[in-house]
Amino acid sequence: MDKKIKFGIIGLGTMGKIHLQNLQNRIKTAEVAAVCGRTPEKVEKVREEYNIPYGFTSVDELLAFPELDAVVIATGADAHKEPVLKACAAGKHIFCEKPLAKTLEDCKEIEAAVKENAGKCFTVGFMRRFDPSYAEAKERIEAGEIGVPIMYKGSSIDPAEVLPDHLEGVKNGIYVPWFIEMGSHDTDLARWFLGSEPIKVHAYGGAYVCKELAAYDDYDNGASLTAFDNGTMAYIQVGRTGTCSHVESEIVGTKGTLRVNHVPRRNYLSALVAEGHLEACQDSFISRWSEAFFKEMDDFVECIINGRKPQVTAYDGTMSLEFCLKLHQAYLEGKENE
Amino acid sequence: MDKKIKFGIIGLGTMGKIHLQNLQNRIKTAEVAAVCGRTPEKVEKVREEYNIPYGFTSVDELLAFPELDAVVIATGADAHKEPVLKACAAGKHIFCEKPLAKTLEDCKEIEAAVKENAGKCFTVGFMRRFDPSYAEAKERIEAGEIGVPIMYKGSSIDPAEVLPDHLEGVKNGIYVPWFIEMGSHDTDLARWFLGSEPIKVHAYGGAYVCKELAAYDDYDNGASLTAFDNGTMAYIQVGRTGTCSHVESEIVGTKGTLRVNHVPRRNYLSALVAEGHLEACQDSFISRWSEAFFKEMDDFVECIINGRKPQVTAYDGTMSLEFCLKLHQAYLEGKENE
Amino acid sequence: MDKKIKFGIIGLGTMGKIHLQNLQNRIKTAEVAAVCGRTPEKVEKVREEYNIPYGFTSVDELLAFPELDAVVIATGADAHKEPVLKACAAGKHIFCEKPLAKTLEDCKEIEAAVKENAGKCFTVGFMRRFDPSYAEAKERIEAGEIGVPIMYKGSSIDPAEVLPDHLEGVKNGIYVPWFIEMGSHDTDLARWFLGSEPIKVHAYGGAYVCKELAAYDDYDNGASLTAFDNGTMAYIQVGRTGTCSHVESEIVGTKGTLRVNHVPRRNYLSALVAEGHLEACQDSFISRWSEAFFKEMDDFVECIINGRKPQVTAYDGTMSLEFCLKLHQAYLEGKENE
Amino acid sequence: MDKKIKFGIIGLGTMGKIHLQNLQNRIKTAEVAAVCGRTPEKVEKVREEYNIPYGFTSVDELLAFPELDAVVIATGADAHKEPVLKACAAGKHIFCEKPLAKTLEDCKEIEAAVKENAGKCFTVGFMRRFDPSYAEAKERIEAGEIGVPIMYKGSSIDPAEVLPDHLEGVKNGIYVPWFIEMGSHDTDLARWFLGSEPIKVHAYGGAYVCKELAAYDDYDNGASLTAFDNGTMAYIQVGRTGTCSHVESEIVGTKGTLRVNHVPRRNYLSALVAEGHLEACQDSFISRWSEAFFKEMDDFVECIINGRKPQVTAYDGTMSLEFCLKLHQAYLEGKENE
Repeated sequence: MDKKIKFGIIGLGTMGKIHLQNLQNRIKTAEVAAVCGRTPEKVEKVREEYNIPYGFTSVDELLAFPELDAVVIATGADAHKEPVLKACAAGKHIFCEKPLAKTLEDCKEIEAAVKENAGKCFTVGFMRRFDPSYAEAKERIEAGEIGVPIMYKGSSIDPAEVLPDHLEGVKNGIYVPWFIEMGSHDTDLARWFLGSEPIKVHAYGGAYVCKELAAYDDYDNGASLTAFDNGTMAYIQVGRTGTCSHVESEIVGTKGTLRVNHVPRRNYLSALVAEGHLEACQDSFISRWSEAFFKEMDDFVECIINGRKPQVTAYDGTMSLEFCLKLHQAYLEGKENE
Repeated sequence: MDKKIKFGIIGLGTMGKIHLQNLQNRIKTAEVAAVCGRTPEKVEKVREEYNIPYGFTSVDELLAFPELDAVVIATGADAHKEPVLKACAAGKHIFCEKPLAKTLEDCKEIEAAVKENAGKCFTVGFMRRFDPSYAEAKERIEAGEIGVPIMYKGSSIDPAEVLPDHLEGVKNGIYVPWFIEMGSHDTDLARWFLGSEPIKVHAYGGAYVCKELAAYDDYDNGASLTAFDNGTMAYIQVGRTGTCSHVESEIVGTKGTLRVNHVPRRNYLSALVAEGHLEACQDSFISRWSEAFFKEMDDFVECIINGRKPQVTAYDGTMSLEFCLKLHQAYLEGKENE
Repeated sequence: MDKKIKFGIIGLGTMGKIHLQNLQNRIKTAEVAAVCGRTPEKVEKVREEYNIPYGFTSVDELLAFPELDAVVIATGADAHKEPVLKACAAGKHIFCEKPLAKTLEDCKEIEAAVKENAGKCFTVGFMRRFDPSYAEAKERIEAGEIGVPIMYKGSSIDPAEVLPDHLEGVKNGIYVPWFIEMGSHDTDLARWFLGSEPIKVHAYGGAYVCKELAAYDDYDNGASLTAFDNGTMAYIQVGRTGTCSHVESEIVGTKGTLRVNHVPRRNYLSALVAEGHLEACQDSFISRWSEAFFKEMDDFVECIINGRKPQVTAYDGTMSLEFCLKLHQAYLEGKENE
Repeated sequence: MDKKIKFGIIGLGTMGKIHLQNLQNRIKTAEVAAVCGRTPEKVEKVREEYNIPYGFTSVDELLAFPELDAVVIATGADAHKEPVLKACAAGKHIFCEKPLAKTLEDCKEIEAAVKENAGKCFTVGFMRRFDPSYAEAKERIEAGEIGVPIMYKGSSIDPAEVLPDHLEGVKNGIYVPWFIEMGSHDTDLARWFLGSEPIKVHAYGGAYVCKELAAYDDYDNGASLTAFDNGTMAYIQVGRTGTCSHVESEIVGTKGTLRVNHVPRRNYLSALVAEGHLEACQDSFISRWSEAFFKEMDDFVECIINGRKPQVTAYDGTMSLEFCLKLHQAYLEGKENE
């Protein structure tokens, strides 16, 4: 309890704040010593709101701060490499948001730097693995409950309300295409559950609702089929025209099937209304995954304290991205042939 | 297949027509030879629509028709006794709608007449026993799946849309109070599942939505608690201000619990809509119980053909009514004490 | 009611008997006048059990029977063409089981013969369209409830118990590969819901559990991705190593999503048991689809009586098969490349 | 963040430890400065495990510790009064576990002492009000979503595994009868949702499975019906022979119905197994309510910091107990009449 792990948060968007709140308000063995963002006003505002001692607008300054034990890198996917390399050089523990980077080259550079900094913890924010339902699914599969897994099915769908923001992000180059941005979770889960790597990939989709996305080789819905090295399969679907924040997975085994969130319920409440029996759904990914976000960070802090190696590695980040890029490429090829 | 059981239908309201349709359109071993109603126009209309040879406005005339094997009595609860007594005297097989009668005296008279006509089949229309889910529940309980049953919980709720019609029926003396009209199903099920008779009864409720019902000692919602002779219990709730036609039952045993229609789904369809995950509910009792109505009549015809005794007896009709009357009486006493 | 449509049943396996029972026991406007099977003993047994006037072992003899109005062809997929052509020549109404045939050439011959016999009704047994949940889904989509459909997802899985029989059938050449045998339903539904034809198809799978199937180019699980002419997509999964008879569909639209049988419940019954909350599933396709089988045949008889054209045409049978063959071919190509 | 609220924990059983863990490991604005238990070994063990500065075996000693801001009283129901009175005299903030006491006299004494200490926060541990689903239900009811509430239905059932421990507790006088011990939650919820107090109560039940309970006027299952002052009703059922930890509530309004935990799911995971579709249930109340336990304590600490009055008052504790005692008394009278 006495010595707390001191964190610096790099990137103060939605994800940066989620991690900041968990570290500062929930995890007693950690504290946020400094935050770093692009605009001085934002940095100052966050610093005051969360009672953080220091605020910076440069990663170098933040890393120069000697007391810092660890950093959370929550910048955009294209801005992960630089802070990761620097934080590795500075010998910090590193929690990096997913996707690890936007290109495989960047991923490889990150992997190399992480290897140099091997005495410290490094992980990528695939928080779904820490969600109690996914974690239990993994345990039960490993206990042989469904025989041998032969298929992973995952659908990750954002509500249509996100479209205007996403389109803006796509136009500004902040958002990577949807099979990469959203798909990175399912590509990680597919690899995790099937224990294999993808060899053949097919994908289709379209800018069905937000037609402007097409001009950026992006889309609002996509569906893909993947064959894995060990003969298993995956169906991965991504969308952002849903009625709610809806992430659903299924692992089909030779002896049974496990499903996560087959009905996207928000909590234990349901209602009988004029239209029927209604279960309110998750309105945003923040509420659906709040426990997973807490648990992944809690686990990361505990890894630092106990010198344990985090479950999700930089290599997982690379392989997930490679799979995402394949899906996106397959989508583009599907479009070309039309 | 050659000789068909010839039915006469007495009473051409909703229930009379349901039975008519099953006998005439679905059950190949039966046919409707005659219908009987109060108004000549209605009789003629039904006769033509369903291609029935004969139509009458008097039960005596219908029963005088020599070829008739069986009758369905689907008049109002207060008009069951007379046709049952006459049909017994005429030696017909009899299917009588529930509740058997409005008073215990009438029930006893009916029981006596049925005993005199013992060579023929007699049953009361507790169709829920023939619903595949209830039938399976009974089988699984008898197989010991939930240990010894200790409690029956049943809620039978009509949608609020029925209120204007019901109020009219109550004013005209056609409808008996709700613990009797609607409650007769759950009182039968409680007796059936618990294998015992009620000894102490408490009930509350009120005319919460349709306040005019109060002037007729009637109510739109009621809840009751009953202690049974064998130490078991029942909770029976009746309502008619629901959002859908909703009948839900639970049988709690010493080793497990069975539930029927815990979520009042209409079919296998569900939808993701703006408000959440929506399962359309049963809009009327007719759709919910159409299979049960068919099966109970199919079973009755088969009883006639094979000389088998129907499962539901006149005694069940009497005991169900006695239980209903106790519930209604308990409700009235609860009100008095207020 | 007076004149009944007289049917002949060709093929007395599971499907032949389901149709026979509906026609003989449930549909009052029809009757089975003759049955036709390969072995005289089987024919005689069925004839007696269901009280059928005539039994034959040759289609020609059956069709020579002058009073026959209609035939049900429920032989194996490879034995549909001959009786369809003959029944067309004999001017009968024809209900043919799915898949329409095993090859596109046979389908085309059938289509031509059906065109010659255009005054009579012809349909293919895609009974799912008559299931109340699928029928309601179609209606609600056409009413615009989910905007424009962009994707069909369908999983059709038989329980593992079927494997020994299926392997035997595959060895004997009775069963066509699984994307054709089982997939024909989902290919029909995908076309129906999306209103378009497939243009690109990918499929993977394997003989994961019943490894002997591989020797026959068959498999126990398969998953596929299809791009349609109008830019929509379909995911079709077939299996026969499930824990129950499980058919689940989802239609994703631009404004909402409809799901059919998302949880494969058998009826309204659920149980609280030591392992959790348990809903018994469909143990066989017969119970899941009994109402659909009845409704499709009831509708066919009504088409004959009223001279209405059945919804499912020979062309639908051809196009569904073409789609199935593509899926199977894609599966084989996926295997080759391994 | 600088000054933390210093807590003393009195009582180191299951509940004491849950609160200790939340205060010590999760809530950054609080810390546990001292623990107090009956046996020195237990105190020492907990002190070391959770890194607590001080341990005591006497409440007086703990309260004499000057830095203490607040206490959590988590002793048995019969041992609440003394520490509450002393903590009030010492001017501490007090969180007391439910039920407030075993007798109404003790409750009244506590209420008086709390009034004397009015400058400090006092609350009773009805954590269900802090469960996100119950909290949302309350909000939606207050927003008028279901019209006027007319009925509360609550079932609170422990798994049968608890029976041996409970019997031991009952024999040792630690456990109060089940309508009081378990029922206190539902009596609080019924009052909260209906906004009224009970006037007439009926209850039945029995020692159906653990027959030894009967000798102590206790029971393993009970069901009750209550009429409220404002004409509303409640059905409260308590059990401890369930297959899982199962708490289910329903609030019926004039325009709709809300349900909490209608199916007692553990998380988002479900499985297709040989027996059907299985959703694992809550195995203990600890997992079901962990979030509620955290939120109620988090809210209490925040009340202390901001000088806000806790929602649940000593009066609520008294009235909940009075309701429980009525239910238990009604049960005993029901038994007597048998």
